[in-house]
This record gives sequence, C-alpha cells and structure tokens, in this order.
Amino acid sequence: MRKIEIVQGILHANEATAKGNRAVLDQHKCVSVNIMSAPGAGKTSFILRTIEALHEDTRIGVIEGDVVSTVDAEKVNDVANAVVQINTKGMPESCALVADMVQVALARLPLDELDLVLIENVGNLLCPSEFDLGEHLKVVITSTPEGDDKPLKYPVIFAQADAVIINKSDLLPYVDFDIDRFTQAVRNLNARVQFFQLSCKTGEGVAEWVTWLRNQHPAD
Amino acid sequence: MRKIEIVQGILHANEATAKGNRAVLDQHKCVSVNIMSAPGAGKTSFILRTIEALHEDTRIGVIEGDVVSTVDAEKVNDVANAVVQINTKGMPESCALVADMVQVALARLPLDELDLVLIENVGNLLCPSEFDLGEHLKVVITSTPEGDDKPLKYPVIFAQADAVIINKSDLLPYVDFDIDRFTQAVRNLNARVQFFQLSCKTGEGVAEWVTWLRNQHPAD
Repeated sequence: MRKIEIVQGILHANEATAKGNRAVLDQHKCVSVNIMSAPGAGKTSFILRTIEALHEDTRIGVIEGDVVSTVDAEKVNDVANAVVQINTKGMPESCALVADMVQVALARLPLDELDLVLIENVGNLLCPSEFDLGEHLKVVITSTPEGDDKPLKYPVIFAQADAVIINKSDLLPYVDFDIDRFTQAVRNLNARVQFFQLSCKTGEGVAEWVTWLRNQHPAD
Repeated sequence: MRKIEIVQGILHANEATAKGNRAVLDQHKCVSVNIMSAPGAGKTSFILRTIEALHEDTRIGVIEGDVVSTVDAEKVNDVANAVVQINTKGMPESCALVADMVQVALARLPLDELDLVLIENVGNLLCPSEFDLGEHLKVVITSTPEGDDKPLKYPVIFAQADAVIINKSDLLPYVDFDIDRFTQAVRNLNARVQFFQLSCKTGEGVAEWVTWLRNQHPAD
C-alpha cells in the first residue's frame, strides 16, 4: 500500500504544477506541444521540420528532454529562437519529463518573445502518459518501421493524444505497416484524434500538420 | 529524500529476488535471456526466429512482458514449449519487468522440461536497465530505422548488454544508420559486448546469433 500512496502523491503534486505551467503559458499567449514517441521515431527531426515550416512568422522555443545527452538540443539550437535542455538522469522519475522540470525550463525561456513552445519528451511510450506537463497539445509520433500494433500495446498514450503523426512514410514500401489497421486501432481508443502521415526525411506531408498546428490556440 | 529512499528500497528488494530467480534457473540448468528494446524494434520477431532456429534440439519457455495486451504471447504460443504472460499495468513499476514478476512466471513454467527461457521485456530503453531479473544474459535490440545515436541517449542499457542485435538490416539501404558509428559508441560504454547484425524479416544473420547463444551456459 505504501508504494501506491506515494505514487499518487507524486501524481497529485504533478497535476498542481502542470496547472501552474498552463497558466503561465496562457498568460504569455504561448501554445505548447508535448511531443512523445518511442526512441528513434523521429521527435527531433519532427521539431526541426516544424520550425523550418513556421519560423518566418512564429517565434519558437524548445524544451529538450533527454536522459543524459545534449545531442538533440545541439541540433535544435541552430534554428529555434530559444532552447532549454533538461537532463532527467538521477531524478526519481527519470523516464519522462514531469511538470516540475518543465516549470524550471519555462522560467528560463523568454516567453514574452515566443508564440510556440515545443517540448521534446524522453523517448518512451509508457511513462510520459502518466505526467501532465501543462502543455496545450499532446502529439504522439509513430514511425512506420515500428509496426502498426503499437496502439494495442501502449493504449494510454494514444488515448490521450490530440494528434498522432505517422512518420517515415517514405519507408512504407519496405515495411509491414497497415495504415487503416493503425488508424482504426487508435480511433477505438480516441475518437477525436487527428492523424498526419508524413516523412521528416523528405518533407512530404509536413504542410498539413503545420496548417493544423497554426489553427490551435490556447483557451482564450 | 523520502522518495529516493523508497526507490532504493525497491531496487534492494529486487536484487534479492533476482538472485533467487538465478538460483532457480541454475538448479534446472536453464539459460535465461532478458530481451530489451524500444517499442517496435522487433523483440517478438527475434524470439520467433530464435525458436525457429533452436527448437529441434532445445526446449524453450518464453516469459512475455507487456503492459496490457496479449498480442505477442499469442504469436509465440504456437511455437514455444511453454509461455507465461505478465501484464504490468497497475503495478507500481509498470514500465518494466521486475524480478518479482519473473519469480511468479518461473513458478508457472515447467523448468525441468526446459533448456532456455527467453524473457521479452516491456518496450522501453530506460526502466528495464534498473531491474535485474535474475537472467543470465541481457540482449538489447536496436533496429536500423531508429538511427545510430541510441547509445548516446540510453547509455545504461547498452553498457549492461551481453549482446547487441542490430535488427532490420534489410532496411539499411533506405535509412541513415552508420554501423561503425553505432558499434563504436556501444564499445565506448561496453568493451565486452557481442554484436549481431541481422534481419528477422529475411532471416539473414540469425544463424550467427544462435550459434553464439548455444555456447552460453549458466555458471557451473
């Protein structure tokens, strides 16, 4: 019993901090997106493509979650308006970003000068679903080589998503991935979700995702 | 401080249970392998290929870890000598198998009639590295579409591996994956590791892995 009580305690505290983060973002009229996926599904490439498509009229900050390295933050640093790195190693919940970490990161970003905050979560389809960060939108990326059965195995993260990205569409001819089976499995968990099929390698399909993102606004 | 103490408590208890599991396996002369990877890297296909290559002279039990589904257990059930499924949902450490769960599974397997126990861990590159299950060998699977930077981002799991499988070698012409860069990054963490490049789709390279596995014996 003791262990479960404490987990609930962490989640409860996380919820309060997430609420505070959302208030800070709303106050600065920043839309924020929590980007989640398995390792190697393409979170960083997706962020780079999104910045490339929006940077002319949108000021973008990025919060880079990683366990130990700065590999992704270095790539993003050249193109974003501001970047903060969070390394989760040694923290009690090192397998995902939690609201506390994002609170610290938001305090270091020039929110007055930003329109959009992209949060790259740690590569994991399980733990991130437990922790609200105070984001406005949750995006889950699946890549086609992972197979189309992920919604059956990791249902919680798909049930919570506002948008699901089917990345690496350029590999569809070489892998077993049935788009209809995948989207139907996600829809069974989540009727309101939006799908975007794209390739961060070729850029195909990125425009549709970006058009949708432009139309998302924090609650006025 | 409280949270950290409890995490250590869990890990300490896990270690004792893992030691017990290893003793039970040794007593029955069963070799056991903990198979870990990101979601969609091919753990189940790898288990199916391994059984296919060994089943004529090796009796194989499989412990299937999954958060909620039985998708993988059903596939494996047709070909293994015995299968036990563990669903981790609702358990305090639901993001990975822990030694307690494996202890329960081992008690349900006919160990007297098995030579090899394959344990399919939950799809996650982070949490499984925290928990010894009592296995003899740790195998980490990376698939080529994930990219070659995973050892930099998830170093602990690669540092602990006895063997690293580079799966989906059939996709190498279509993805950016530099085998030398990957193996060098793993070697920097782990000098004693064995590499096997293979494709569970075509079967190419599976023989080398199986030959190595045949030569692994629990400490006599």
